[in-house]
Amino acid sequence: MHFDQQSLSNIAPRYRAHLINSVTGYKSANLIGTRSAAGLPNVAIFSSVTHLGSNPPMLGFVFRPLTVERHTYNNLKTSGEFTVNHIHTGMIRQAHQTSAKYDAETSEFKACDFTTEYVDECKAPFVKESRVKMACSYLSEHRIEENGCVFVIAAIDSVYVDKEFIAEDGWLDLEKAETVAITGQDGYAKPTMLDRFSYAQPGKEPESLL
Amino acid sequence: MHFDQQSLSNIAPRYRAHLINSVTGYKSANLIGTRSAAGLPNVAIFSSVTHLGSNPPMLGFVFRPLTVERHTYNNLKTSGEFTVNHIHTGMIRQAHQTSAKYDAETSEFKACDFTTEYVDECKAPFVKESRVKMACSYLSEHRIEENGCVFVIAAIDSVYVDKEFIAEDGWLDLEKAETVAITGQDGYAKPTMLDRFSYAQPGKEPESLL
Repeated sequence: MHFDQQSLSNIAPRYRAHLINSVTGYKSANLIGTRSAAGLPNVAIFSSVTHLGSNPPMLGFVFRPLTVERHTYNNLKTSGEFTVNHIHTGMIRQAHQTSAKYDAETSEFKACDFTTEYVDECKAPFVKESRVKMACSYLSEHRIEENGCVFVIAAIDSVYVDKEFIAEDGWLDLEKAETVAITGQDGYAKPTMLDRFSYAQPGKEPESLL
Repeated sequence: MHFDQQSLSNIAPRYRAHLINSVTGYKSANLIGTRSAAGLPNVAIFSSVTHLGSNPPMLGFVFRPLTVERHTYNNLKTSGEFTVNHIHTGMIRQAHQTSAKYDAETSEFKACDFTTEYVDECKAPFVKESRVKMACSYLSEHRIEENGCVFVIAAIDSVYVDKEFIAEDGWLDLEKAETVAITGQDGYAKPTMLDRFSYAQPGKEPESLL
């Protein structure tokens, strides 16, 4: 089946949103925790958190156009701090619910039955139920002129993870952590490891590391 | 286990690369196809392809610093066109092998045993073996000052996908397409759908759509 430019612009907006949201492949599944200037903890689901570099450790993620109030954006711009918390299989329904449009006085932690956790010097709340967590700080942002989205770039300051999920070489066993992946706007999947391969070199078959 | 800023900067670079590459969660698994000015087809694996918007359909992905020759980058800047092709379970070893540093005269299509496919007006090669494919055109790029990476933004001009993978509402069943997800630099996983949920609204439990 072929959708060309013409048919992509003519199909129903909801159909196009489902199609285009799933056509880039699986997405990361994270809850971003922030705290407002007034102290209210906020948590919201994001499927766009992307690795940007290891040295220094950095990630990026996307905000839709700031034409409506974005609590997460306002909070992280004000405080400079936020947390990233993996969503595991037992959390998917609650995590999805954080995408509902709650008013500014409601904490999604309370509304969606998650527990705030404050650790070390980070002023933003972690999600206690999560098994892989990061403390991050805002670095910069790029406005995507083509559609008004904002790509935020942040430093990964701290990583919290159970020892049993870390392989000898630092790789995380996300299957053991039961971290999920997202398809489209509303699909949640549980990945099973197929293989890990050795560093690729011309003329040499990759070897299995598992 | 807690890695703070101090320990993240002190651990061995390979260990940090594995850890930080997997800590953002699962990543999309795509092959990007391009063609050089001289006509040589090129294909390379990318785990950073990210949804940026549905209207108009857009995606973004990251190049590491352009301090060494990046064939994919040069080709897509020259021609303005490229393809994005999902990696399925039967392609993971070959797809991983495209990350080997081949010289500019070698086509990874040939070296890694993939088949070029030219469809409609797109001048860049598709990967015939792939089951979900897009034709894209370069829009703009943002240099990430903090580490020299480049975030490329592109328009999705065409989508090619088997009818059997498309749900009634446009959502793609990536499990049926056997699309994989990537963990870290070298891990490949096969996701199984857990659930799809209805649009979230305050005070209402999300309903299952499956």
